Amino acid sequence: MATPLPPDDLGLGRVVSDESRQRMLRPDGSFNVRRTGLGFFRSHRLYHDLVGMSWPGFAAALGAVYAAMCALFALGYWALGPAALDAPTGDAGGTGFLRALYFSVQTFSTIGFGRIAPVSHGAQALVALEAFLGILYAALATGFTFARASRPDADIVFSRHLLVAPYQGGRGLMVRVANARRGELTDVSAEVTFSVLHLDAALDRPVRHYAALELERTRVTLFPLTWTIVHPLGPESPLHGLTDDDLRAGDAEVFVRLTAVDETTMQPVTARTSYRADDGDVLWNARFRDLFDRSGDVLTVDVSRLDETEPAELPDGL
Amino acid sequence: MATPLPPDDLGLGRVVSDESRQRMLRPDGSFNVRRTGLGFFRSHRLYHDLVGMSWPGFAAALGAVYAAMCALFALGYWALGPAALDAPTGDAGGTGFLRALYFSVQTFSTIGFGRIAPVSHGAQALVALEAFLGILYAALATGFTFARASRPDADIVFSRHLLVAPYQGGRGLMVRVANARRGELTDVSAEVTFSVLHLDAALDRPVRHYAALELERTRVTLFPLTWTIVHPLGPESPLHGLTDDDLRAGDAEVFVRLTAVDETTMQPVTARTSYRADDGDVLWNARFRDLFDRSGDVLTVDVSRLDETEPAELPDGL
Amino acid sequence: MATPLPPDDLGLGRVVSDESRQRMLRPDGSFNVRRTGLGFFRSHRLYHDLVGMSWPGFAAALGAVYAAMCALFALGYWALGPAALDAPTGDAGGTGFLRALYFSVQTFSTIGFGRIAPVSHGAQALVALEAFLGILYAALATGFTFARASRPDADIVFSRHLLVAPYQGGRGLMVRVANARRGELTDVSAEVTFSVLHLDAALDRPVRHYAALELERTRVTLFPLTWTIVHPLGPESPLHGLTDDDLRAGDAEVFVRLTAVDETTMQPVTARTSYRADDGDVLWNARFRDLFDRSGDVLTVDVSRLDETEPAELPDGL
Amino acid sequence: MATPLPPDDLGLGRVVSDESRQRMLRPDGSFNVRRTGLGFFRSHRLYHDLVGMSWPGFAAALGAVYAAMCALFALGYWALGPAALDAPTGDAGGTGFLRALYFSVQTFSTIGFGRIAPVSHGAQALVALEAFLGILYAALATGFTFARASRPDADIVFSRHLLVAPYQGGRGLMVRVANARRGELTDVSAEVTFSVLHLDAALDRPVRHYAALELERTRVTLFPLTWTIVHPLGPESPLHGLTDDDLRAGDAEVFVRLTAVDETTMQPVTARTSYRADDGDVLWNARFRDLFDRSGDVLTVDVSRLDETEPAELPDGL
Repeated sequence: MATPLPPDDLGLGRVVSDESRQRMLRPDGSFNVRRTGLGFFRSHRLYHDLVGMSWPGFAAALGAVYAAMCALFALGYWALGPAALDAPTGDAGGTGFLRALYFSVQTFSTIGFGRIAPVSHGAQALVALEAFLGILYAALATGFTFARASRPDADIVFSRHLLVAPYQGGRGLMVRVANARRGELTDVSAEVTFSVLHLDAALDRPVRHYAALELERTRVTLFPLTWTIVHPLGPESPLHGLTDDDLRAGDAEVFVRLTAVDETTMQPVTARTSYRADDGDVLWNARFRDLFDRSGDVLTVDVSRLDETEPAELPDGL
Repeated sequence: MATPLPPDDLGLGRVVSDESRQRMLRPDGSFNVRRTGLGFFRSHRLYHDLVGMSWPGFAAALGAVYAAMCALFALGYWALGPAALDAPTGDAGGTGFLRALYFSVQTFSTIGFGRIAPVSHGAQALVALEAFLGILYAALATGFTFARASRPDADIVFSRHLLVAPYQGGRGLMVRVANARRGELTDVSAEVTFSVLHLDAALDRPVRHYAALELERTRVTLFPLTWTIVHPLGPESPLHGLTDDDLRAGDAEVFVRLTAVDETTMQPVTARTSYRADDGDVLWNARFRDLFDRSGDVLTVDVSRLDETEPAELPDGL
Repeated sequence: MATPLPPDDLGLGRVVSDESRQRMLRPDGSFNVRRTGLGFFRSHRLYHDLVGMSWPGFAAALGAVYAAMCALFALGYWALGPAALDAPTGDAGGTGFLRALYFSVQTFSTIGFGRIAPVSHGAQALVALEAFLGILYAALATGFTFARASRPDADIVFSRHLLVAPYQGGRGLMVRVANARRGELTDVSAEVTFSVLHLDAALDRPVRHYAALELERTRVTLFPLTWTIVHPLGPESPLHGLTDDDLRAGDAEVFVRLTAVDETTMQPVTARTSYRADDGDVLWNARFRDLFDRSGDVLTVDVSRLDETEPAELPDGL
Repeated sequence: MATPLPPDDLGLGRVVSDESRQRMLRPDGSFNVRRTGLGFFRSHRLYHDLVGMSWPGFAAALGAVYAAMCALFALGYWALGPAALDAPTGDAGGTGFLRALYFSVQTFSTIGFGRIAPVSHGAQALVALEAFLGILYAALATGFTFARASRPDADIVFSRHLLVAPYQGGRGLMVRVANARRGELTDVSAEVTFSVLHLDAALDRPVRHYAALELERTRVTLFPLTWTIVHPLGPESPLHGLTDDDLRAGDAEVFVRLTAVDETTMQPVTARTSYRADDGDVLWNARFRDLFDRSGDVLTVDVSRLDETEPAELPDGL
């Protein structure tokens, strides 16, 4: 009774498969969908943001919390009046807010010069609380620094374009990938999935089809250079005979997914992207330029030239 | 000679299989059993509590330890008498317990204003110990903060109900699951196991049977939206022809187990739950409501509506 | 040409296989061999000790380093003479070594009361160094605290004895295992290997043989209770017909290895042990006692009774 | 249409395969190639350096940053003039740069004696910034300390030479490996690949061929001692009949790759090396010396003697 779902649909499901003309995957690999109703804490946005953001952004976020905490407690000390703190007269800050702020900084960071010192019960109580939060702050800063530092830091880069290029006397669909980090990746595997809308005569509406594409090779053990992933466009390919216009009309999307092992941490890493003819991601009659330099005594590859192509005539009649 | 155990019993074993009418798995996925005789330290309760509790609870626990340590050492300084510490007369706290407490806070947190300072051998010795414990405290706070932050933070949510719903002209057993975190999950696999008590004629007592249920699909590669896990209730299903009363009489329990990979940390994650007709977990004649919003330019799914259902007539005569 | 090594020898190799009468694995799972020539740093003894030792031992090690560092720098400040530091006269410690020690503590822990303060160039230079080492110390203490806290903390316990017990009308070799931690283990797999010395007629010397033993079941998905691992002693078993004397004469050793996944950290864990008849590890005519308590509303298992057995008559003629 | 790439080429690809006479893998396992064009931050050189360098080097790097930061801020305080800070006259440092440096140290490390204290607005602002950077510094130092401490610390050592040794009446290619760490490794697997340049008659140029070599055994479960990996040089071996001169002429390279599980962290580890006849890595007519000491009650293996060999006559006519 049960008819299995069409294979190779990656789990995107019927809802998306049958109706959507939109791009499923953005070029950076993120999904072009949104989940709502998660609740503020449950969605852990903060955590993902802190771990996923850039290092300068992370430092800025830490600095902002530091400044905010110091200022907040400074307001507290200041509100307790000039007698809450004691400092030599003549020092900058006098008995006003700035003195409270300087003191707050020295407390939150646990420096505690003591030149400005708490002398009232209220100030002492605030100090106890601020010192505790200062310890928590340092713990969080350290914890997140490490959570960031210990993430697999693989950065697999994909060529900007998907090529339809000459291959073995026929044509091949080609993507070039490289490891943009200094650490090595091993055991790299690739999966490529093709998705296209077809008009379903029985249902009288377009239905999205998915197909896993056969690859020249699906896995490399060592990955010191680059890898050109090739799907031969032979008669058995679901793209056989399709033109650029066909791809655009069918809202075709080609998903590429890589998995590998980061040797520095021995953790698995993954990367994905997709290509749409509609968005100018597919190049016909081109091939990837050689990016090796063999002049020195060590073979050199220039990753910044990953997407360089040159014109190449495709054989006819395919 | 050796008759293998019945397959699919998940390892719960004969003891449980043959006699227990109780729920094996609570809805939150924890086991409805208790292990004793572990010994206090061996069972690592503290560790699991500190890692597993909520963030506010964790902060409260840290705060309680901070306060307790400061108070404990304050008692020590206070017991050494008013001459152990020195501070300007006129400061709040005088020479009593509160002064000792303020000093203790400033020592444990390693602030050390110095306005209140240790001047006796006893106080100096206590300072050395308290400073060491303060460093340990910060180390533990930081370590546990990170241990919490680096845990796979997947939160797979299951629909509250298991549905018996129309499926492909017949019936299907359906559970809907979603990812309640912002980070993505990939390579999600499902296992569903059915367990029921049957009267064994030969033994003249009920015996619990287990069966792995066939699924429409057992794995999705990408999981940006939701997944409705379906077991078709065809003739080959062990639930074929059973009614709600049958499920209740047999103390039937349906176990659902998911495994996936958390893309943020690339760590495996798992989740499980179970459904019992007895506890009102099974809904007949219903189907899951669509929770997609296609009005914007980005497909949106509202996870908070995961359990929304609508009436649906089941075909007769299964 | 190449004759493969005997299978199932676990990699212990010919050297060990053919000559050794000694126990290969200690009951705690460690190897009864020694590797030398590693070099001090290369062998990373310190790291493994710090991560593997008990929590009280770890705290004691940290305390010893703390005390040693403080004392070492105290010697430095003291050697610089009484004018290197300044403090109010009348404070405990005077101008001698104890004052230097108190100051050193307050510097290493970064408290810095300032009551005792550095006033010479030499003292300031020492302060800069000690403060740096104090930061490194805190970093190491924190790093190792977390390295310890984040280790998979599974503690799989094995029954003290290997039983030859009645099983399904015949006999079975049985080990009982349990999870001694509060966190759950899943996907538990067992491998059992038997090793015995046989006199090799051709070589005229004993040769050690290895054989993987067939198990009633090799894997349980859920492990909330205990698991009795059973090898049926049928005609096809390499132990079939052997007596306790045979096992002792052949220096027989039974290796048990478990692998599982710790659900708290989702990391793999492993445990192993071995049993030797020679060392009184094998019990005949016994079976494991039931350690379940079904009286409450929650099934309870007492792990501390894991090794409790009761006499049981073995069937004859096997 | 698509002709699959020759198997076993490890992913080094055509570019390298067909033209390169250079060594692909250095003896330490790193690739003899260079990737450029990565961009400074993207290549994460700093991260890999900090995690991968030696412990003394790491401590030196931390010390250099500490000294640089302290000196940098000292310049700032000094530039603010003698009135920015206040300290008792007569202390070493006077009102010059050294006083600013001492103060900077006490601020960056969050000691804060207070004997030298900030008294101008500018100095207070610098203090706030330096304290923040001091916290970040401690966080980074701690995070990297742990990132280093938590790396799988396996150190698999390979024998310096690849031997062509007597084996089972014929010849075998042999490498000996050992675990140079105190922690145990389990589930060790080996892959050995042979690569050689052949003159391709059709293309009239040399083409590099790859072949996976059959091993006597490919996996050991336990690894307490050493393992001699053996490729029998029988008629079916791609090296059958080759001489040392053949290996040199063909720029032959033998790649050895090991994967294992580090029991301390339960993380996977890997190691690789290669041997080239050209570089004197291949020894003929030799066998590995026994490095076991059976005199004590515990079997002992001396890892430092891993590469010790003794002459051994190879059988003729192979």
